[in-house]
Amino acid sequence: MPELAQAPSAPLPRHLAADDVGIVQAKDFHYPGVFTFASGQAIEGFTLRYETYGSLNATRDNAVLVCHALSGDHHCAGWHSERDAKPGWWNNLIGPGKAVDTRRFFVICANVLGGCQGSTGPSSTDPVTGEPYGVNFPPVSIRDMVDSQKLLLDHLEVAGVYAVIGGSMGGMTALLFAIEHPRIVRRVLAMATTTRESAQAIAFNEVGRQAIMQDPAWHQGTYPRDGGPRVGLAIARMMAHITYLSDASLDRKFGRRTIQGSGAAGGSAAFDLKFEVESWLRHQGQSFINRFDANSYLYITRALDQFDLAYAYGSLEQAFAPVQAEALVVGFTSDWLFPPEQNRAIALALLRAGKRASYAELATDLGHDSFLLESDALYTLVRGFLERNETYVFDFAI
Amino acid sequence: MPELAQAPSAPLPRHLAADDVGIVQAKDFHYPGVFTFASGQAIEGFTLRYETYGSLNATRDNAVLVCHALSGDHHCAGWHSERDAKPGWWNNLIGPGKAVDTRRFFVICANVLGGCQGSTGPSSTDPVTGEPYGVNFPPVSIRDMVDSQKLLLDHLEVAGVYAVIGGSMGGMTALLFAIEHPRIVRRVLAMATTTRESAQAIAFNEVGRQAIMQDPAWHQGTYPRDGGPRVGLAIARMMAHITYLSDASLDRKFGRRTIQGSGAAGGSAAFDLKFEVESWLRHQGQSFINRFDANSYLYITRALDQFDLAYAYGSLEQAFAPVQAEALVVGFTSDWLFPPEQNRAIALALLRAGKRASYAELATDLGHDSFLLESDALYTLVRGFLERNETYVFDFAI
Repeated sequence: MPELAQAPSAPLPRHLAADDVGIVQAKDFHYPGVFTFASGQAIEGFTLRYETYGSLNATRDNAVLVCHALSGDHHCAGWHSERDAKPGWWNNLIGPGKAVDTRRFFVICANVLGGCQGSTGPSSTDPVTGEPYGVNFPPVSIRDMVDSQKLLLDHLEVAGVYAVIGGSMGGMTALLFAIEHPRIVRRVLAMATTTRESAQAIAFNEVGRQAIMQDPAWHQGTYPRDGGPRVGLAIARMMAHITYLSDASLDRKFGRRTIQGSGAAGGSAAFDLKFEVESWLRHQGQSFINRFDANSYLYITRALDQFDLAYAYGSLEQAFAPVQAEALVVGFTSDWLFPPEQNRAIALALLRAGKRASYAELATDLGHDSFLLESDALYTLVRGFLERNETYVFDFAI
Repeated sequence: MPELAQAPSAPLPRHLAADDVGIVQAKDFHYPGVFTFASGQAIEGFTLRYETYGSLNATRDNAVLVCHALSGDHHCAGWHSERDAKPGWWNNLIGPGKAVDTRRFFVICANVLGGCQGSTGPSSTDPVTGEPYGVNFPPVSIRDMVDSQKLLLDHLEVAGVYAVIGGSMGGMTALLFAIEHPRIVRRVLAMATTTRESAQAIAFNEVGRQAIMQDPAWHQGTYPRDGGPRVGLAIARMMAHITYLSDASLDRKFGRRTIQGSGAAGGSAAFDLKFEVESWLRHQGQSFINRFDANSYLYITRALDQFDLAYAYGSLEQAFAPVQAEALVVGFTSDWLFPPEQNRAIALALLRAGKRASYAELATDLGHDSFLLESDALYTLVRGFLERNETYVFDFAI
């Protein structure tokens, strides 16, 4: 007698996976006081949009502050709805049982001040004029991102930050947080980052800014909410996206594959899509303009360019002198935006300043964006750093 | 008795230096026949603007054909007037007694078909309409550049090309010339080049094209002579120029030096120049738009992207099979646009095809533009290759 056919069990929705934080919701922190920027300018009150996963423990010291990169936001894990196509940007790293274990840690991630995903920035309404701040928003620095996030932690009554972690701009933010708030930060984990950009990185950012500001729709930064320099922003994003990857990864992903039907068209059609990499690039530009504000892009790239720990504190060693946290710095071999040497230099300077610091170099071919990759080597490294009680050897490669 | 004071002798004008070709003049070659492009489209007649230095010998076989890069032109040595601020782009390499010795060789360099420095291209007048061709100009390929330059050599009654040489796009042209006209070419010297661009190189070119084509002044390629997408072209050039250099050279040249008086300005002025590298970059963009046609930029970058010897001939070995010239390929360690490996691969494929080929790698930190550098190592290498009668070891580094 044949067995009864069983209905195939439906695959578990991804947000219900055992190691997924599931459906999450952003919250808004409204700071009511006057906030003075590093520039000296001030605004009356600001909002940070943020998410938290896990629970604050009884001693309120199991917080893990996650800091996002230029185009990132507060949504670093989980899903906003069951219909979401993608989870938060670091969902592979954060969750119950994952490297950043939300059963143990209270994870906090906020969209940066100056951003455009719910936190106060150039696209927010200036209470004085009733119009978007635009370029009348005060210049934003990494320092302002740190200060505003510290106010959020105070609001959440966080007493201790078990770790502050981030890649790229998030790595800068994490380092500065550990410098400015040494008594509450126990560990700092910075990846694919630098203590100051090279001339080449500044140059790429400048081309992006020029593409935005030379777009007639920029209107000196006073474009309406439903308009703006979409073309310039797309150009800026396309170019920047190339710098986040690597020659090898683009070759592996696209090579010289051409698009079906792209023949020897004449006229302006001769410059239509021919190669798959072009199609991907245009898609990157188009999807970015639907989610990012051009003035925010100007402000945040300026914050990146002007971040310079050695300049701000006299030397790297002086910058790191107050740090009490133990540090892990991770560089990626194929990262040519903030190359391995710049990451190694951070750990070396921390060591020279008498701190506990390790440097690990991961062999990847994904370029700068490697810190977002799915990599057991990275997960093991992060898990080890967050769980262990001992420091390990200084410099190693995986 | 004191010696008589002598009047200091005035420094010799640079164009009168013993190893300088001096004041030169461009000439125009008008080809009267129908020219059929590789695409199958044709135009009635074309012009190539070119320069020559030195004299054709009695056997008419001492020609050295110099091929320029994307933004180069026919003016590769000497001066157009005593008041010129700069000589031709390869003046350090070409002249009486220099590595490419004009006492011995008859040097020819032409602005490419599709260019905008006097040769027929998209900015030329379409005899049918009386307007600039614009994007109605036939698509241009490296093959078309080779074919049109061969017609120029025929016009000059050149019987033998002692060497065809070039860097970057000029290297592609030189290789293809040696493939297509094997019986007249004795030596080929290709530097900082590739037999096909990587996805990353295509991607950068595509961002440049998008910057031009999305500029409202492009008007589907039909802009008037005195107008055009200047903003888009400047953006394209600024970005491309970063790819021609290197992180190290930009850091050495500019580092993070800021511009005097660039303070914490508010409003849109917050995004004015702050770093010296930004100022240099904007200057690069501005000076380019005064000398280059945006449609030419589209056409020539497309020619670069579509150049693919292995694809066109079935394999690299088949492409190189007809070559009779002896080859030297030079790569530069800091070139990340057409990196050393891609140059070495050319020499290897030539060897596999049974040809005489050498590869030399020069340690420089100037990036892709290294082929234009002032370097005794490079001069010695070129001189040796052009003067010697024997091949040397295959692969060496300097």
